Parts: sequence; C-alpha cells; structure tokens
Amino acid sequence: MKKQLKSIGIIKTPYNTLSDCPDNISDEGPMCEIIVKKEYEAGLLGLNKNTGIMVLYWLDKYENTKSDLQVLSHADIENLRGVFSLRTPKRPNPIGVAIVNIIEIDENSIFVKGLDCLNDTTLIDIKPAIYQELKEEISEKKPDNK
Amino acid sequence: MKKQLKSIGIIKTPYNTLSDCPDNISDEGPMCEIIVKKEYEAGLLGLNKNTGIMVLYWLDKYENTKSDLQVLSHADIENLRGVFSLRTPKRPNPIGVAIVNIIEIDENSIFVKGLDCLNDTTLIDIKPAIYQELKEEISEKKPDNK
Repeated sequence: MKKQLKSIGIIKTPYNTLSDCPDNISDEGPMCEIIVKKEYEAGLLGLNKNTGIMVLYWLDKYENTKSDLQVLSHADIENLRGVFSLRTPKRPNPIGVAIVNIIEIDENSIFVKGLDCLNDTTLIDIKPAIYQELKEEISEKKPDNK
Repeated sequence: MKKQLKSIGIIKTPYNTLSDCPDNISDEGPMCEIIVKKEYEAGLLGLNKNTGIMVLYWLDKYENTKSDLQVLSHADIENLRGVFSLRTPKRPNPIGVAIVNIIEIDENSIFVKGLDCLNDTTLIDIKPAIYQELKEEISEKKPDNK
C-alpha cells in the first residue's frame, strides 16, 4: 500500500513566509482562493456559497521534516505536548484541515476567509462539513456568538 | 514532491464488510478503538478523555479505485453530485475525517464511539478538534441538543 496523495489544486493566501502565517484559521481573516485543477472541477457540483466545507491540504514545507513527537507549543512554553494534541504542521503526516464557509464559487475557484496556510499550498481534498459531527463539541462549549 | 503518507496506527471497528459500515459517524454508535503504533505513542501526550479529536484515516479499500467526479448519493438518487460535495470514500484522495469525543485513553489506545469505517482501517493523523473552526456552522444551524 503506497498511500500516495495527488494534488487536486492549490490554495492562494496572503502568506508567503511561515512567519506571516497566523496560528489558526479565523472567519474574520483575509479572503483566500482555493483553485481546483480544471480536471477536477466537475467534482464541485453541489457545493454552494454560504455552506461549510472541510478543506484538506498538504503542508509542503514540512514534507521532509523529521517531526519530534513532543514539542513546546505557543500556548504553553513550559510543558511538552504530543503532536497529536496540537495542530502543529510538524507531524508524521503533514496534512492541514480547516473548516470554513464558502463566500463565493466561480468555476473552479472557491473563495473562503481566513485560512492559515502558506500561499500556493497543495490542495488534497474538499468535503462538505457535517453538522452532526460537531454535536459533542457544541454541548461541551457554549458558542460565543461574536 | 511525493506526498507519501505513513501509517501511524489502525482503527478497530465492528465492521468487516463495506455493507456493514454505516453511512456516517454517530455519537451513539458502538465503541471503536484507535490503536496508535507504539513508536508514535509519545505524540498522544496532552490528549484527555472527554475532549474532541479529529481523526484522519486512509480508506484502504478505495486506494486504487478510479473515482468518478460525479456520482449519485444515497440522499438524492436522481441528481448527480460532485464528490467534493459528498463524503463518499471514492474520491481522488481517499482520506476519511471524523470528529469524535474521547471516551477513554489507555496507553496507545483511544476509545471513541461511532466511527463509520471498516475494521483495520489505517490511521494517518489525530488532531485536537478546535471549537473556533465551527463557529460559522453553528451560527448557520441550531444545535438540537439531543
């Protein structure tokens, strides 16, 4: 089993260096463009503006990084944390996942706000966000409705 | 760029054939065990019971499937839908994603409820679920607090 990923497109963000990238996605962040390769455009049928999608991308810069399994995070610089309890890009399989709202779709381009990845990050999948998955999180924490 | 994934473990579910698998995850489903390889166990530090995780897995059975970009779904058997608007496992990169609650952790085993994948599915990543990602979904749809 090879478990080889294909690039299905590219993500355009305002961030050209790692130090420019925010730590997390934000629905108030700048507009970003998810450009699906023309050969995959037919797969977008049924996605509409104002719906949630889950975007999967390949953190190209970390592809050949040997990841430590425990690191210090920004949130707690005193205690080591396991990489699976963090969103750090330095992980055994450098895949990023973001749930965002579709602002607009134009042919093979999807516009969303506030992705946190580098410009020209490789797109590997788009899925519809499913509300039912989130029930437990919602019952744990109250929405702050900002 | 090779974009080659590593197996970091395996997922045990009650489903040994595709026809046994439910269509989606369910927080009322049966207990499943996510077994992280011993060599990656250190990466679990900081994950605790009653917290949400995002689990990424490789849909092994679909690895060499040539995926159509538009298919008929269970929900609508009359209109074609793009694979990126569906959670179908037949997709260009057969990665499954589930957000679930940790019921228990015991060494390198994480117990969660209601995954929808086949027994012995390859685990590729675990991330903490982040509430802030879900704000837009929540503001769109009311929790039904079952």
